[in-house]
Amino acid sequence: VRAPAACPERPARSRRWLADLRELLAIPSISGERRHLADVGAAADWLVHHLRSIGLADARTVAGRPGGSPHVLASWLAAPGRPTVLLHGHFDVQAPGPQSSWSSHPFVPTLRGERLYARGASDDKGQLFAAVTALGELLARDGRLPLNVRVWFEGEEEIGSPGVDAFVERERASIRADAALVADTQMLEEGRPTIVTGLRGLVSADVVVSGPRRDVHSGLFGGAVANPAEALATIVAALHDPAGRVDLPGFYRTVRSAPTSRRAEDDPTVLSAAGVDVSWGEPGWTADERRSIRPALIVTTIAAGGRQPRAAIPARAIARVTLRLVPDQDPLAMASALVARVREVAPPAVRVRVVTRAAVPPVVVRCDHPAVMAAAGALRDVWQRPPEFVRSGGTIPGVAALAARGIQPVLVGFGLPADAIHGAQESLHLPTFSRAVDALQRFLVRYGGSS
Amino acid sequence: VRAPAACPERPARSRRWLADLRELLAIPSISGERRHLADVGAAADWLVHHLRSIGLADARTVAGRPGGSPHVLASWLAAPGRPTVLLHGHFDVQAPGPQSSWSSHPFVPTLRGERLYARGASDDKGQLFAAVTALGELLARDGRLPLNVRVWFEGEEEIGSPGVDAFVERERASIRADAALVADTQMLEEGRPTIVTGLRGLVSADVVVSGPRRDVHSGLFGGAVANPAEALATIVAALHDPAGRVDLPGFYRTVRSAPTSRRAEDDPTVLSAAGVDVSWGEPGWTADERRSIRPALIVTTIAAGGRQPRAAIPARAIARVTLRLVPDQDPLAMASALVARVREVAPPAVRVRVVTRAAVPPVVVRCDHPAVMAAAGALRDVWQRPPEFVRSGGTIPGVAALAARGIQPVLVGFGLPADAIHGAQESLHLPTFSRAVDALQRFLVRYGGSS
Repeated sequence: VRAPAACPERPARSRRWLADLRELLAIPSISGERRHLADVGAAADWLVHHLRSIGLADARTVAGRPGGSPHVLASWLAAPGRPTVLLHGHFDVQAPGPQSSWSSHPFVPTLRGERLYARGASDDKGQLFAAVTALGELLARDGRLPLNVRVWFEGEEEIGSPGVDAFVERERASIRADAALVADTQMLEEGRPTIVTGLRGLVSADVVVSGPRRDVHSGLFGGAVANPAEALATIVAALHDPAGRVDLPGFYRTVRSAPTSRRAEDDPTVLSAAGVDVSWGEPGWTADERRSIRPALIVTTIAAGGRQPRAAIPARAIARVTLRLVPDQDPLAMASALVARVREVAPPAVRVRVVTRAAVPPVVVRCDHPAVMAAAGALRDVWQRPPEFVRSGGTIPGVAALAARGIQPVLVGFGLPADAIHGAQESLHLPTFSRAVDALQRFLVRYGGSS
Repeated sequence: VRAPAACPERPARSRRWLADLRELLAIPSISGERRHLADVGAAADWLVHHLRSIGLADARTVAGRPGGSPHVLASWLAAPGRPTVLLHGHFDVQAPGPQSSWSSHPFVPTLRGERLYARGASDDKGQLFAAVTALGELLARDGRLPLNVRVWFEGEEEIGSPGVDAFVERERASIRADAALVADTQMLEEGRPTIVTGLRGLVSADVVVSGPRRDVHSGLFGGAVANPAEALATIVAALHDPAGRVDLPGFYRTVRSAPTSRRAEDDPTVLSAAGVDVSWGEPGWTADERRSIRPALIVTTIAAGGRQPRAAIPARAIARVTLRLVPDQDPLAMASALVARVREVAPPAVRVRVVTRAAVPPVVVRCDHPAVMAAAGALRDVWQRPPEFVRSGGTIPGVAALAARGIQPVLVGFGLPADAIHGAQESLHLPTFSRAVDALQRFLVRYGGSS
């Protein structure tokens, strides 16, 4: 293991945590693939072992929903009178996609330059591990922590955290805290510390179109039989208007948002991070606003007719539709609006079902909370500049469940736009990781002294 | 091997040909899958061996296009002064689709009732083998044939026969004949012998939409980045008008077709064979007309975002678009019309390519040709009713290549609507197969005596 160039002054940290993080990243804990269920459990077990090794003796896995992945819980509560912070993150990852898009194997963590390449390196194993490392170093140095700490890591974030609300309700005694520190978001760019002040909510649904009882020959029947692939395309095409607005009934009615202060600045950053030359979307808003303070509808998957083209009309076609919601859109009302629109535009000669998979409300953060102020101070200490406060376009159902129970979210993430989370070649920027560990330690010290 | 119930009077045929056909069907000669290239070659070798065993000593494989599958050629030319007929068919098959849709393995030929289930049982190994069996029985009985016979079987029909035109040109000496007997079409229903008087032409093209350089997170970028999946849906939706007409410039301008005599009759047959409750398509025409004498556009595949839904905007989306053409539509002109329409409707924030994969002209059969009349007589002999003359909606590029060189096609097929060709549970109706062998023998005798 080579020490990252940017932190030569910390050989102990770089040697130890990098080896540990590589172990965690090597576990293919893909929550979206049934055959990797045991690997998600293995990542939970690895974390329990590691948390115990740094001094959290009660670290344990706890079952969540039936058939789902375990959660990891732990605590260190020996600071009476001090605040309690919950460290939250997730140890599951997205599927890596085709191996051909990666320069190295997505589950063989590989150092190139200042980056460690692996699925989950940034989202969220790397970031979660920054918080664990911060705890471990404080405990190793002082033998104690400056405040009470609880830990809750989950393993189904990448599939929308089904049942997370029920889990938080059931385990409320183990999770109770004054604030939740979540390192699962992004910095605007390297060197610009960032606190996220809100998350978009989410509705996820499958639109399933059925036609003939089985695939039928496209020559012998083509022209006479309604085609589910074409019907689904018609439905998907009707979900936006030609200008780029989402075309669901009442979609924008309850949206509260005002132009941001960074209007002119961030579009090139957004386009470069997304790997596109031109922007697209709702007229009247910048690219950065469209992806954060404005709601959106995204079709992430369309599948009709199998991997290998065949000369057949497919019996079935399916699309995964995602809504990203902002205050004050109601997830259930928006799920109904999607169903209504699909029904309205569905061609008559096919059968159409909409199956709602998830519904998560948006989250807004109180910026005057002592934990948020402690985080802002810690970031300023390390980066020598005040953090920027931004809304994120992402969704973290666990955070929404905590916020709904009055646990203040502190969304201090260290991902960078170049990390390629959810895409091929995901990686972690090691110098930023090292600063993140410092900043999280300072946060714990500052928040511990704030009461 | 159990003898099929319907032909107890022919134990010799049922014992022998069924065992042979099972061998041929067991070879997974899927031309659409690279890893099965050797299996397509194995099917060719099996046929060469079999043709030699029945007395066609010069049977051989011949290479086609570079990297493609071999062809099978053979001849029996010891009837000077008599006509020469070319037997043509294909030994490759479509991919079977998911195993879960099959009651038995698609490459373990399985008898249930009067049907033999396997991929290719009807299209086209079973039908091709009926012609081979007819030849073999005549040679075994008489030691000679009543006319000159050439054989050309190919192994890339199911991928659109790339390069077949060049092959026919190169091998014109080995293929030269007065007529080509092709058993690769369907009867209207069991007991109704059918001669196909025309085939639809075909244009096959991929529409490829590219957006961000790699998949990007749908929360962090959703709303700000044009989505290739949605752009492709918009394009596909614009290829038909709301009434069901194909919406390409000039698509119908050169179409010659008149309502058929079976207008009122065949819709229920079509719907039942397709496994749908209601018809769909171009207004003013019956389901049977829409699938045969009218042209059509069929999207057979849409793929965007991978098999497992991920929370990402896919970098790329692809659709396979097929045009089925009728006289006098020109394939190259229609391919250009598709490109023009896709360009016209493509959203501006994505890149769109159209890659044309195949272009085959429609075929029309001369019904007064001696070979067609011989076939009509043979069918009447066996089924005790005159054959019906119909246009098929399918496409056979090899037949188009022969017709373009003045070799008269005789399209006498024995597939039944219930055979489920190209779908799951494909099967061969054994009583019909046995009658087909009889009819093909009578065709050879009648056509041999016609000059």
